[in-house]
Amino acid sequence: MTERADGFTLDEIVSRFGGELIGDGNLRISQVATLEKAGPADFSFLANPKYCKQLKTSRAGAVVLSSANAPDCPLPCIVSDNPYAYYARVAQLLNPSWREASGIHPKAVVETILDPSVSVGAGTCVGKDVRIGKASVIGPGCIIGEGVAMGEQARLYGNVTIYPGCLIGARAIIHSGAVIGADGFGIAREADGSWTKIPQIGRVIIGDDVEIGANTTIDRGALDDTMIEDGVKLDNQIQIGHNVRVGANTAMAGCVGVAGSARIGKRCTIGGGAIILGHLTVADDVNISAATLVTKSISQPGSYTGAMPFEAHRDWLRNAAQMRHLDEMAKRIRELETRLAQLEKKS
Amino acid sequence: MTERADGFTLDEIVSRFGGELIGDGNLRISQVATLEKAGPADFSFLANPKYCKQLKTSRAGAVVLSSANAPDCPLPCIVSDNPYAYYARVAQLLNPSWREASGIHPKAVVETILDPSVSVGAGTCVGKDVRIGKASVIGPGCIIGEGVAMGEQARLYGNVTIYPGCLIGARAIIHSGAVIGADGFGIAREADGSWTKIPQIGRVIIGDDVEIGANTTIDRGALDDTMIEDGVKLDNQIQIGHNVRVGANTAMAGCVGVAGSARIGKRCTIGGGAIILGHLTVADDVNISAATLVTKSISQPGSYTGAMPFEAHRDWLRNAAQMRHLDEMAKRIRELETRLAQLEKKS
Amino acid sequence: MTERADGFTLDEIVSRFGGELIGDGNLRISQVATLEKAGPADFSFLANPKYCKQLKTSRAGAVVLSSANAPDCPLPCIVSDNPYAYYARVAQLLNPSWREASGIHPKAVVETILDPSVSVGAGTCVGKDVRIGKASVIGPGCIIGEGVAMGEQARLYGNVTIYPGCLIGARAIIHSGAVIGADGFGIAREADGSWTKIPQIGRVIIGDDVEIGANTTIDRGALDDTMIEDGVKLDNQIQIGHNVRVGANTAMAGCVGVAGSARIGKRCTIGGGAIILGHLTVADDVNISAATLVTKSISQPGSYTGAMPFEAHRDWLRNAAQMRHLDEMAKRIRELETRLAQLEKKS
Repeated sequence: MTERADGFTLDEIVSRFGGELIGDGNLRISQVATLEKAGPADFSFLANPKYCKQLKTSRAGAVVLSSANAPDCPLPCIVSDNPYAYYARVAQLLNPSWREASGIHPKAVVETILDPSVSVGAGTCVGKDVRIGKASVIGPGCIIGEGVAMGEQARLYGNVTIYPGCLIGARAIIHSGAVIGADGFGIAREADGSWTKIPQIGRVIIGDDVEIGANTTIDRGALDDTMIEDGVKLDNQIQIGHNVRVGANTAMAGCVGVAGSARIGKRCTIGGGAIILGHLTVADDVNISAATLVTKSISQPGSYTGAMPFEAHRDWLRNAAQMRHLDEMAKRIRELETRLAQLEKKS
Repeated sequence: MTERADGFTLDEIVSRFGGELIGDGNLRISQVATLEKAGPADFSFLANPKYCKQLKTSRAGAVVLSSANAPDCPLPCIVSDNPYAYYARVAQLLNPSWREASGIHPKAVVETILDPSVSVGAGTCVGKDVRIGKASVIGPGCIIGEGVAMGEQARLYGNVTIYPGCLIGARAIIHSGAVIGADGFGIAREADGSWTKIPQIGRVIIGDDVEIGANTTIDRGALDDTMIEDGVKLDNQIQIGHNVRVGANTAMAGCVGVAGSARIGKRCTIGGGAIILGHLTVADDVNISAATLVTKSISQPGSYTGAMPFEAHRDWLRNAAQMRHLDEMAKRIRELETRLAQLEKKS
Repeated sequence: MTERADGFTLDEIVSRFGGELIGDGNLRISQVATLEKAGPADFSFLANPKYCKQLKTSRAGAVVLSSANAPDCPLPCIVSDNPYAYYARVAQLLNPSWREASGIHPKAVVETILDPSVSVGAGTCVGKDVRIGKASVIGPGCIIGEGVAMGEQARLYGNVTIYPGCLIGARAIIHSGAVIGADGFGIAREADGSWTKIPQIGRVIIGDDVEIGANTTIDRGALDDTMIEDGVKLDNQIQIGHNVRVGANTAMAGCVGVAGSARIGKRCTIGGGAIILGHLTVADDVNISAATLVTKSISQPGSYTGAMPFEAHRDWLRNAAQMRHLDEMAKRIRELETRLAQLEKKS
């Protein structure tokens, strides 16, 4: 907190994170802000050239930008190949994550022995045979099932539920309402139409440096495990089905659904509200657009989209009516082509 | 509760809420019901002329309807310009919201001083420097983070989570499982494909008279605040990204997703499952249909739709196959037009 | 647990569940596994002929399959008309659900008298006038509102919320974060654009043998009740609006949304992310594909789809541009047909 009050000089920042400084290295910054709202003690960034004009009017103390934009910058600046990532590191430096006092709250229920550096909030239940890495912080109202293991410096906000037996890596951040390890949707249909539940005996295994958003759910495997590899970032309200594997450093925006046994590659980005069907494979470095339904495997990197464009409702009514006639339209075009070719021959 | 047992006479209702009474003002009603199921002590409504026939067979004690339908009504009735809103007010009168005994449950953990009129349920954690307005009711199992401020007569059901620093207006209703103020999805990509988290230092600010549904999530701002203006109504399982602004009296149905920094106008209605992309602006008085993906700004009021019509699967297979050939179809039509014009010239 | 350690012989299994055994009835199995990963004490299944080749290389102790695949099977096997359901029953036998010690945790808050066979976890709040059937297990952190009634052998995982007055059948399984009985989205618009809340005075009534996934929400009825019939299976993150009726043995995959007052038939299957609009009726035995928007009633059994196919983004850009011109394309085709017919007459 004292760090934040005092801030850092630009020289100190460049010596930590690199980049070329143009301007006074003694200038001290204490917080980050947008170009529009920044004041003289704030550090800002220009990642999108579209906002280049704001450099002229910004009151920011300093800004990080690419070499292409440096000549336009009247402010002290740091030149970086990746201004947005540079900004992220400065923002982290100025906003260290808040540390609860360590120790177990007297109103927590802990049935295992924890390292004294671990913090457990009020009302949280930690089951038997749970291992939690050093300096981890478990918020209030969490439920950590029997046999869960968690790495160091993990951070669970309040009201997170981890079912028994799941493994969670180091430096995990899990937001409120997330549920890890509930039963997968495994049911077998009987002849009379009723369903028999299939016990879900796999686990969820989550790698290091994974962040999981509020109210996101990740189901345990049916027989094998559901795997979330290192560095995966999941936004809020995402549903990951049983036996799914999400490759390292893949990021998914809110409201995505991934059905059971899908395998998603590394470094993919999945837009908000996309649905990925089960038992298919998505290659590494694939970008799925928002609201796209992925119905079959994707073997090549690249961007894929399946969304319906929106328009004024009255126009949509007319156009949508034709969607049910596309096959017929295609036939009529073929027929026109045949008939026209015959006429052309004659003429 | 005694009010509810005794009910109110139609005269009493008209004197509170206005409207023109046709029939016996001494008739006493004690509950609301549909035209189909109402009995002689029930008050019903006719808002959709489609159900006009039910007036003939309904056993309701009284009904509110528009002047156009009054002549068809054999029952005592109140004529109103807005029968559905009138009905809502009568329903509220007959069903006052249930008041817990005020005071802090001995199994709550409260680290601040609260007004004696506030009620806090078992297991709820209220952090330091929290302010809660008079007569507010916080259910069991809630987590109210440090520095949260809440208006009067707010009602949080059980298992709600409010992250530190968020502001919530008067008369808020927040349902179970909602998470207010979790980190927005702010990550910057490094050259190796991994992600660096950007601290989310803004807040969520919620106006007065806002209702938030079960398991809805509203993320805190990255730098500035996420804003939900007065009178906004959010259904269940909605995701609101960081820095979004939702204008006053906008209503969203379940499962909507709004990506970061979108600005949505006042008095909009957003249908269930719609997705609104980030960094765009939607004007006031816009209606978005269910399951529509909004990919660009909307500057004019009106209704907008982008949904794909459904049909029998075998028909869909044939038509959907053509969707990947629409551009080719358009070219073939243009070519047909050119060739036909040439033939017509010749003939 | 001893059962699981010892396992069962194939003779014991066939005598419980029927089917024709081919091979040594004394062979003892103790767990289930996939054909690929099974060892000699594991029981596996072949439900999809696509995986028939795996029979040759599998190390499973035994496998259940259909009579068509039996001749190809080098392993001991059980022949069944429905191998997957047979497998489900064996998996249940080998994995009996885990029983908490019965009794009320000292850190639970229970305001009613419960049968001594009921288990209630730490931090759970059970309101007044609640009835819970024998041998039911309520996990930690749950909130069971006043007047709730629940059948025998129900299983609520941690952090489940049941609002007052809801009824839940026998053998219910409800996963963490589910919210049953929150207010439906009932609001009436006033002339100034603001909304008046309509009290939601119905209940949620859930039949026997229903499973409800993590973070799924089911709203209480506005006036009548929301009904989930026997044997319904709901995956995670589903939203069921007020007054909906879901017919017996219908199954819904994750992220489905069902708007208010929809009536869905028996034995339907609803794919992930589908949205069903309100006030419509879906017949029995209807299958809705993933991500399909159902905008009108369906009166005939069968499969229905409305999803937009995805493709490489650059192709999608070209094809999607034409979707806003479909009506115009249809007109141009009709015009071409007319002009061509005139030419043909002349020639």
